[in-house]
Amino acid sequence: MAKSQRIHTVIFQPSGRRGSIIEGKTVLEAARELGVDLESVCGGHQKCGKCLVRIEEGYFETERIQSGRDHLSPVKEKEREVLSAHSVNGQAEGYRLACAARIKGDVLVFVPEESRQGRQVVRKEFTARAVTLNPAVKRYHIGLSPPLLHNAGADWDRLKSETEGRSGLSGLTVDYPVLVGLQKILRLGDWKATASVWMAKEVVGLEAGFIGRSYGMAVDIGTTTLAGYLCDLTSGQVAATNFMMNPQIPYGEDVISRISYAVAHKDGLKKMQRAVIAAINSIARQLALQVGIKRQDIVDMAVVGNTCMHHLFLGINPEYLGRAPFSPALNHSVDIKARDLGIRIAPGAYVHVLPNEAGFVGADNVAVLIAEEPYNQDEMWLIVDIGTNTELVLGNRAKLVACSCATGPAFEGAHIKFGMRAAEGAIERVEIDPMSKEVRFKVIGKDEWNSELDNAGARGICGSGIIDAVAEMYRSGILLANGRFNQDLKTPRLRLADGIPEFVIAWAEETAIARDITISQADVRTVQLAKGALYAGIKLAFRYMNVETVDRVILAGGFGTYINPRSALTMGLLPPVAPDRIRSVGNAAGYGACLTLFNRDKRAEADRVARQVQYIELATEQDFQKEFIQALKFPLDANQH
Amino acid sequence: MAKSQRIHTVIFQPSGRRGSIIEGKTVLEAARELGVDLESVCGGHQKCGKCLVRIEEGYFETERIQSGRDHLSPVKEKEREVLSAHSVNGQAEGYRLACAARIKGDVLVFVPEESRQGRQVVRKEFTARAVTLNPAVKRYHIGLSPPLLHNAGADWDRLKSETEGRSGLSGLTVDYPVLVGLQKILRLGDWKATASVWMAKEVVGLEAGFIGRSYGMAVDIGTTTLAGYLCDLTSGQVAATNFMMNPQIPYGEDVISRISYAVAHKDGLKKMQRAVIAAINSIARQLALQVGIKRQDIVDMAVVGNTCMHHLFLGINPEYLGRAPFSPALNHSVDIKARDLGIRIAPGAYVHVLPNEAGFVGADNVAVLIAEEPYNQDEMWLIVDIGTNTELVLGNRAKLVACSCATGPAFEGAHIKFGMRAAEGAIERVEIDPMSKEVRFKVIGKDEWNSELDNAGARGICGSGIIDAVAEMYRSGILLANGRFNQDLKTPRLRLADGIPEFVIAWAEETAIARDITISQADVRTVQLAKGALYAGIKLAFRYMNVETVDRVILAGGFGTYINPRSALTMGLLPPVAPDRIRSVGNAAGYGACLTLFNRDKRAEADRVARQVQYIELATEQDFQKEFIQALKFPLDANQH
Repeated sequence: MAKSQRIHTVIFQPSGRRGSIIEGKTVLEAARELGVDLESVCGGHQKCGKCLVRIEEGYFETERIQSGRDHLSPVKEKEREVLSAHSVNGQAEGYRLACAARIKGDVLVFVPEESRQGRQVVRKEFTARAVTLNPAVKRYHIGLSPPLLHNAGADWDRLKSETEGRSGLSGLTVDYPVLVGLQKILRLGDWKATASVWMAKEVVGLEAGFIGRSYGMAVDIGTTTLAGYLCDLTSGQVAATNFMMNPQIPYGEDVISRISYAVAHKDGLKKMQRAVIAAINSIARQLALQVGIKRQDIVDMAVVGNTCMHHLFLGINPEYLGRAPFSPALNHSVDIKARDLGIRIAPGAYVHVLPNEAGFVGADNVAVLIAEEPYNQDEMWLIVDIGTNTELVLGNRAKLVACSCATGPAFEGAHIKFGMRAAEGAIERVEIDPMSKEVRFKVIGKDEWNSELDNAGARGICGSGIIDAVAEMYRSGILLANGRFNQDLKTPRLRLADGIPEFVIAWAEETAIARDITISQADVRTVQLAKGALYAGIKLAFRYMNVETVDRVILAGGFGTYINPRSALTMGLLPPVAPDRIRSVGNAAGYGACLTLFNRDKRAEADRVARQVQYIELATEQDFQKEFIQALKFPLDANQH
Repeated sequence: MAKSQRIHTVIFQPSGRRGSIIEGKTVLEAARELGVDLESVCGGHQKCGKCLVRIEEGYFETERIQSGRDHLSPVKEKEREVLSAHSVNGQAEGYRLACAARIKGDVLVFVPEESRQGRQVVRKEFTARAVTLNPAVKRYHIGLSPPLLHNAGADWDRLKSETEGRSGLSGLTVDYPVLVGLQKILRLGDWKATASVWMAKEVVGLEAGFIGRSYGMAVDIGTTTLAGYLCDLTSGQVAATNFMMNPQIPYGEDVISRISYAVAHKDGLKKMQRAVIAAINSIARQLALQVGIKRQDIVDMAVVGNTCMHHLFLGINPEYLGRAPFSPALNHSVDIKARDLGIRIAPGAYVHVLPNEAGFVGADNVAVLIAEEPYNQDEMWLIVDIGTNTELVLGNRAKLVACSCATGPAFEGAHIKFGMRAAEGAIERVEIDPMSKEVRFKVIGKDEWNSELDNAGARGICGSGIIDAVAEMYRSGILLANGRFNQDLKTPRLRLADGIPEFVIAWAEETAIARDITISQADVRTVQLAKGALYAGIKLAFRYMNVETVDRVILAGGFGTYINPRSALTMGLLPPVAPDRIRSVGNAAGYGACLTLFNRDKRAEADRVARQVQYIELATEQDFQKEFIQALKFPLDANQH
């Protein structure tokens, strides 16, 4: 029942979230307001069709609201085209694009599984290696004599001189909130206290008594995934890790759509900054819970992300980053009080934001560099951090070049008809028999391959599955080197849908969606565009370095961990190299951020290397287009691998 | 009409302020909540009788509230005693102590003139001398080339290196809000901007285009008066001054009552801090208006005050300052972001809080020292800053000693029956003819002496008038050296009131209060206690310095400007010295604060001298009591002056 003429009740199922929405808002806007998990890749432009929802009709009894399809604005031509392109089972069933349908009355909205972002199975991890402990925040156990009537002295003055005496430092300052609470804490601890000193300059924390452990938190803000690492600054160990989807996803799936959102919406920047800060606070709370401390016990933080994530985190409008001449607000590292950002850790703590390199090659890539140290190698290394933006660095101790390749979200399952993120139900491995063209596949969440199961329960294909599928299709002759289907083949899996060829990976009965899961010609094109963008970048980097081969390929990032090196080589995603020279290092960006907490020399190292890497702006390279077209093809020597 | 059973409407006249007050609160609490100007010296303990109000009865027509004297809690014994001691014209007229009367229904409260704090005629000024310009915040005009596609660079990185190049500085950091706004400002000014650099370390402000003038604000937080000075950092001139009563006065008139208030009330500290910060923001707005700039154009601030004001300003509980062993939270100077304190000037600006010396001898006294520089003198100087707490410093380039004398608010007109602040209607000068014992006086706001006026319109006596009166009464033989009245004298001005002698300064017809204004035996005792406290301090300082005389007396503070040196000597407020060796320097504390804006070397000088001054804690000096009793007497050679 409408509370007034212009406010309507909207209920989302299966989440059960409900709220009062102003008339005229789209269902997608309502979903965002109510925090409902609903995909939108194109940013609400009636293009991607990912925000498909079903409107239920009739009385929703316990709620006493009457939902009706006519409680939404009518379907217009643009929406109709997208709906039919997505082969929706007819409008009769009440499917709508959430971004197109405007609310005119109470509605009950069902969000189908395919339209939910789901909770990605995040697999960004790394093995911590031995680190040199020289943390940016150090703790000192300070004992003061109680003040005497004839020589009371001021508490901070005495604490300062004692801490300076113990640490060999001088000119220590004190953070304001620490100063305000200082007298109580000194007395609470009976004149014994633990002082946290930041960068040998400032007392940023004070606790009563002698406290043993000391914690910092590293944050890697991915376009898709937020990762938090709780670092024990006394042992050099990562004590806990926690992940979360980047809550900015509803505002756009890639950096370009988020920039557009910030530019087009008056409070878009504020919303996105608040979302990511809230998520970091939530991760901090989780991490603290995991090891049994309080969030306020975290005395340091290091943050990395690509240049756009970096700007959004800092609340800096990415407007100028998004248009020529693409100037970032800053590339240098910066230290900001956590409280100025709204981050709730120790009140006096600083957040160290690592430097960016240039363009979109951001602090995350710098963190990968200080984790892997190619600048200390004689060998020629290629480091590839595959994501929606793929950054690559090529070089050795003599020189490093870097570039950012607009691979798009295809490797994360987007823009692929049955693509999905690496969540339960995703096909992550594909093998095709070259003779029979029969397929076996493995689904995330199942221990066995499909052939050993009654129903593999597949819902779609994630990035590593897509790369496997395309590589195997090429290797087994289903695809030609130019990416076209070999239509001479006789197999029921290869067929035409509306005149477009597609190959069936999973039959409907092997899925949880009761539809055949296929790779279409359009999907292959999308993968080709992505791999073309990456490989063209690699070729230009080779030219800048004047090399033709590399000694080693380092795959950074969670996705890189699960990629099948053989498939990547078959597809021509990576330059020719022996498969055993390909190493996956997990989330090296997160690890690099941790290193800057354990050892402050790593901060200086990061600043140095960020300025040292030569950046290639692919957009302005004359040869890029030529290389890109060249790189769309699959390599001819594919079967060597 | 009561909005509910427990909320009542309270209206104050003549201010007309009204509000809804919870039943059971006192009228004084209601006045504070509604921001009504109502005196309270004893801090609401039914002692001082300054919060006297009259309750009106009947319907207050336009408001439709019925006010009644029975809408307040009944008068109990303690209140009755105070009311009768203050010779109130009978309870029949509805007089109550605001601190005793609790609200039980709607009331209309009239605040008589005597119970209003009034707006003090503040006369704290100083003549600025030539200063060396080396401000803590310096401005640089920066021109950048527009970014190019092939070599965009980050805006902050380019601004930093250009500013470093221009200034010869290195390692510049940037304040967070400045960083957030940087890209827009650079483009707004077409790549010309003015950067404000704090202490050669941090860019704390950035404005589009080349801006000429640069401003800082100095604040002197007196227990009674807040003074603000807008300093033009490019010319070394004080461009504007503004004053305001310290809004903490309702919470206690002296430092001890404010400490008690902070300790006794859960949110007392927060309230007092908020009050002073709000007042500073308001002064900043006024100062900006006076010279036609915006408050945000103020890029630096320096603050001084006694140790208690200093703690309250910083939001540090003065609890430990108020009880043995009297430990301040800090004596060192400290720099705090204005925004962390809630001060609304340039968002990136710092507030420099000058160091305290020791005990209650605070940053205001340090400011006096760096303004007068006794440590650069060969002569022996005595610097006296008279106030509710009187600080004195004795010494020369070899050594300085300081102490704080609890003179109380008598010199500010409090605790004196007809005492008042230096506001309109206050008697500020008194002369008594030694033969006839006739009096002539001068009132603030009138250009002529009383004898030349039909009605001088006197309302009370302010500090300089009290000192004049007591000195003249002693000189003309009305008072004896021990402070007793000479009862052998035959003059109608000398009389007994309830058996206690008093001397009439102004006859009722010369006043605006229709009562004789007198100096009573009790008033003389109060003055003796104050001057005794000061003179005993001076004697002990002499002993610490091993001297018997001084070469020069410097009177600092607004009060010192208006004191009659001859009267001060007659009374024995100051040590024997030729009157022409007494110099009034006005508000040297405020001037010292200004100096730290004009020249940052003065900050280091302040830090040095604050640690260098030897502090005498009078409370623990064995001889203090003896000296104090000795100093109560008036000096025998009084008539020499």
